[in-house]
Amino acid sequence: LKAEIIMVGSELISGDKYDINGPYLAGSLAAIGIDVFRITTVGDKKRAIEGALRSGCAEAETGLIIVTGGLGPTKDDITTDAAAAFTGYPLIVHDEALKHVRSLVKCRDKESLHAHERQALIPRTAELLKNHLGTAYGYILRHEDKILAFMPGEPKEMMDMAERELIPSLKDRGLAGSAPGTKSFHVFGLSEVAIESLITAPLEEFECLKTAYLPSLLEVTVRLSSRAGDGGGIMEQATAVIRRALNDSVFAEDDITMEQAVGNLLRKRGMTLALAESCTGGLIGHRITNVSGSSDYFLMGLVVYSNEAKTRFLEVEPSLLKEYGAVSSEVAARMAEGAREAAGASIGLAVTGIAGPAGGSRDKPVGTVFIALASDAGNRCKGFRFRGSREDIKALTAQNALDLLRRALIGL
Amino acid sequence: LKAEIIMVGSELISGDKYDINGPYLAGSLAAIGIDVFRITTVGDKKRAIEGALRSGCAEAETGLIIVTGGLGPTKDDITTDAAAAFTGYPLIVHDEALKHVRSLVKCRDKESLHAHERQALIPRTAELLKNHLGTAYGYILRHEDKILAFMPGEPKEMMDMAERELIPSLKDRGLAGSAPGTKSFHVFGLSEVAIESLITAPLEEFECLKTAYLPSLLEVTVRLSSRAGDGGGIMEQATAVIRRALNDSVFAEDDITMEQAVGNLLRKRGMTLALAESCTGGLIGHRITNVSGSSDYFLMGLVVYSNEAKTRFLEVEPSLLKEYGAVSSEVAARMAEGAREAAGASIGLAVTGIAGPAGGSRDKPVGTVFIALASDAGNRCKGFRFRGSREDIKALTAQNALDLLRRALIGL
Repeated sequence: LKAEIIMVGSELISGDKYDINGPYLAGSLAAIGIDVFRITTVGDKKRAIEGALRSGCAEAETGLIIVTGGLGPTKDDITTDAAAAFTGYPLIVHDEALKHVRSLVKCRDKESLHAHERQALIPRTAELLKNHLGTAYGYILRHEDKILAFMPGEPKEMMDMAERELIPSLKDRGLAGSAPGTKSFHVFGLSEVAIESLITAPLEEFECLKTAYLPSLLEVTVRLSSRAGDGGGIMEQATAVIRRALNDSVFAEDDITMEQAVGNLLRKRGMTLALAESCTGGLIGHRITNVSGSSDYFLMGLVVYSNEAKTRFLEVEPSLLKEYGAVSSEVAARMAEGAREAAGASIGLAVTGIAGPAGGSRDKPVGTVFIALASDAGNRCKGFRFRGSREDIKALTAQNALDLLRRALIGL
Repeated sequence: LKAEIIMVGSELISGDKYDINGPYLAGSLAAIGIDVFRITTVGDKKRAIEGALRSGCAEAETGLIIVTGGLGPTKDDITTDAAAAFTGYPLIVHDEALKHVRSLVKCRDKESLHAHERQALIPRTAELLKNHLGTAYGYILRHEDKILAFMPGEPKEMMDMAERELIPSLKDRGLAGSAPGTKSFHVFGLSEVAIESLITAPLEEFECLKTAYLPSLLEVTVRLSSRAGDGGGIMEQATAVIRRALNDSVFAEDDITMEQAVGNLLRKRGMTLALAESCTGGLIGHRITNVSGSSDYFLMGLVVYSNEAKTRFLEVEPSLLKEYGAVSSEVAARMAEGAREAAGASIGLAVTGIAGPAGGSRDKPVGTVFIALASDAGNRCKGFRFRGSREDIKALTAQNALDLLRRALIGL
């Protein structure tokens, strides 16, 4: 059984919005052994939606068609009209959906009640998919030998509905296949080509595993997958091979993020962290505190954008700033020490740099960054020259700072 | 003339990767007056690619089909084979492309030269699209009354090729229409439905304008567009109508972000800002410093995750923390004052809250947040109860804090 995903929304074909529903649904379906054959994105036009339903149903391999978007209360939202026209099922008011809409709209905005009541008009014979977050119920229809599922386009509502309603219903209907075994490795500091050259030969004996490389600005994810179930611990063996080949460059596996990996190491070592951020403006602290429970090891961050703040809070001597400039290894090292002392933390981590697009010079062009660590084991500092937009340079600085901290913690 | 975008890549239908090529291309085409009718995403399968080309060509309104992906050197990359099979043009070696591949691969990796040379096999009659960043040349074919363009899937290469090669070629071919006039309003503090009820009636007289609502977690974007060119300043009139109807709730227009709007106001007022962040962990500072030149008004941020840091750096009395708790309007207000004093800034902005998922209580459940402002005009503090994930709560806290600051600056 294969699936087709149809996304409805004029904003998705006008360049106004990135789609996150398609990849999410494809991933959820893959996890229950259903492959996606095609994703089609069309605007809020009845003819286009019906056309997409028609080609989806014409595909012999496809048994499941999932449509997202166009279930809202405004007059743009015409997916249900298109579904009714395509399948021939008349629209009727579903009491459960009507009650749901009324209960939600009551506490919000009376004027719009009438518009929202349209959302309870759903094709006859539909199995309802509850919306736990908003007014738009989804539903499942049978059409000839295909199953058609309709869900709202708002990503949070769609994702919640997929997880709590759609996927269980597909399982109940016996549509779930055997999920592939997968294992992901998050790699930092090696390019896709370098990783490939390190692991291709050692992985040759694992013929039944597929290797995928997913590069992004901040990491390369290597993903192994086995379609045939994991006979005889093959995945474990391959995992050991990859860990050996890539070693410290694997900063985390599966769902673990860089900031979680760093947090786990700090907790394990019983150490605390203080930050001094200049060019990242708070991004490193933001990432560290994306981890629940980070208050156990994260004491404080100082975002010292001005020289005065660097001097006042981190005791960076004005003479140091004058002699070497705020963007220098000397100032970075002093900032790391200053943060550590000020917070009484085990480790101080500091960054200073030129994120651009203005502020560069011949000696220190945009992208020049220094990252420093201070701890009982001594201080270290590293210089970088990043390329990219202001946001890229901030993101690369934060990732490199976290990775430097991670490697130092492993070494301790 | 409408366009169809076909994206080829198994990673795009497996949930492994978000697509950014589709929205980028759609936006580039919209800017030269070409609407996208449909975006289709298929895996690296010859049958699926040919099928997508066939349905694209079957669409009467569609004159232009743009295919991205599958032009690489590995055996997965079969888009060109599919293009040749579909159009009937034989593949021939294009000397210019071959020279290009050889010059690039020479300085990289000799082993893969043979694989890369396949990239110079391109259908006869093709107009080449140069790749300034990688080995994969793109190309344009005529097929019956349609124009088919093929480009690599790697986003940086594709975007560069689109901008420097494809769009100019489409213009040369006389395919560019008149770009629509558009105007965007970024709204905070009003729901999509509330906005619609405020502006639908006043906009009724502007029949030739289309209104689109693009809601996200942190704002609703209202977008007006006129296809027919902007006769007699209609867009200006409609802009005045929307500004009047939505007033202060419009925090920015067009490409301006919340942090830019806040920065512009601070600069205009000649004021400086200091931050004290608890639950946001640095996110507000990160956003403020996403604006180039923010060092003119942003002095310092203190990320005070621990109570000790709150006391030490912001002079929050331990008794206050004991009596009201760290998450309270009293402590938020003191943090804002403390940040302002410590930095000698015109304005102090502080947030404290429970981002969850742990740490909530009956009195102060997860999502409880207090935001405070301190300035010469006095102090203000506002309490919130947000819902969502840890990251949502952090994001909502930052957005509300920036908006509170923005409204205060307007009032000053």
